[in-house]
Amino acid sequence: MLFFTQCFGAVLDLIHLRFQHYKAKRVFSAAGQLVCVVNPTHSLKYAPTLCAAVQTSTEQGILPPCHHHDAVHDPQLVPCMCPLFSCPWEGHLEVVVSHLRQTHHINILQGAEIVFLATDMHLPAPTDWIIMHSCLGHQFLLVLRKQEKYEGHPQFFATMMLIGTPTQADNFTYRLELNRNQRRLKWEATPRSVLECVDSVISDGDCLVLNTSLAQLFSDNGSLAIGIAITTSKVHNPEAEM
Amino acid sequence: MLFFTQCFGAVLDLIHLRFQHYKAKRVFSAAGQLVCVVNPTHSLKYAPTLCAAVQTSTEQGILPPCHHHDAVHDPQLVPCMCPLFSCPWEGHLEVVVSHLRQTHHINILQGAEIVFLATDMHLPAPTDWIIMHSCLGHQFLLVLRKQEKYEGHPQFFATMMLIGTPTQADNFTYRLELNRNQRRLKWEATPRSVLECVDSVISDGDCLVLNTSLAQLFSDNGSLAIGIAITTSKVHNPEAEM
Repeated sequence: MLFFTQCFGAVLDLIHLRFQHYKAKRVFSAAGQLVCVVNPTHSLKYAPTLCAAVQTSTEQGILPPCHHHDAVHDPQLVPCMCPLFSCPWEGHLEVVVSHLRQTHHINILQGAEIVFLATDMHLPAPTDWIIMHSCLGHQFLLVLRKQEKYEGHPQFFATMMLIGTPTQADNFTYRLELNRNQRRLKWEATPRSVLECVDSVISDGDCLVLNTSLAQLFSDNGSLAIGIAITTSKVHNPEAEM
Repeated sequence: MLFFTQCFGAVLDLIHLRFQHYKAKRVFSAAGQLVCVVNPTHSLKYAPTLCAAVQTSTEQGILPPCHHHDAVHDPQLVPCMCPLFSCPWEGHLEVVVSHLRQTHHINILQGAEIVFLATDMHLPAPTDWIIMHSCLGHQFLLVLRKQEKYEGHPQFFATMMLIGTPTQADNFTYRLELNRNQRRLKWEATPRSVLECVDSVISDGDCLVLNTSLAQLFSDNGSLAIGIAITTSKVHNPEAEM
């Protein structure tokens, strides 16, 4: 574990040295693992075109209703789930990925195991870090959100969703892992489908939850590295029996 | 993982069926693992002999100073760390275990891997669940605490401390694991020494932290099962490199 921690430290140092003033999503490979640097999306405060209702309720810590597009009747139609943007787009599952890439410039990464490196963790809530992850023939959406469920007490919520149906999602297990300073925190669960709502997953607390002090313990220079792995649930893992 | 979850469910059902009206610490073996049922200690509200200063500060969510016994000068002298009791006892490390057993009736369990089953998770904060764990030639203290760091928002904090010096503690790694409903949360860290203070570990948030919704997700009928394992840090574990 110590070796791993040191490795991560070295990777983070390298990142900070090389990319200190470069503010975009960046992908590179380090120590055999794909590291994706993800910058925050702090759109609520700066985007003047936001839906006012969603903005107000989110700022008060009350989550907006999931399907805020009155015209959605087809259960396979997905509203844009890019959090906080309140994008009016809606479409079928098959075109969600291209919408997220083209309209919201969300990166998509390949590989069974990647490292998600969220920068600027100190930014005030609400803030999101979002990436797509292509793996095992499917696309997943990883959302890290800083939010004040209770006023004055920001927390970090991380979850992974399948860009697919709930039945397809049941075939997978995702793992999020933090590892630093001889401490390790690991969350494993079945991903939810994006047909459900990222906001409700987070308001239910059914995800990796970090309070500020834990987030600081696992951060290095304001960046939080989250190791991500996705497996199919049907592969029997003996370690999964604890 | 599903098999494990079902196993745990069966164990919990068995426990509730057989021990529903029996309110003491109970130890039995199920499915090859030692399961210890730990009842809560809710002493602050009912013990009239408490140190008033400690009681007040804890109720306000401000943690009491660690060494509240003015006469402590020998750094090897440990005040009684049985949380919330504010017991005036102090003594050397070698006699801490016998004090905790005899005066506070805290159980001690043997075995490398045990299951700590905390009952009555719904009780209001502050509440503690405490057990000692004898393993690898040393004794450890496991503390699960429900506490309102922020008024109205109780959280659960779990940590393991070595009844020994900080240097001895550095040789070990402890793991706390929750596993239920196809979700798994794992915390690994180096135990702290009881010469440090359980209160400061918890106020720093350097432990497994659960908010109420996560605790409910992992609980069954108001009981939370925590798998505990202790290893020596020097045994190289390939899985520890993630």
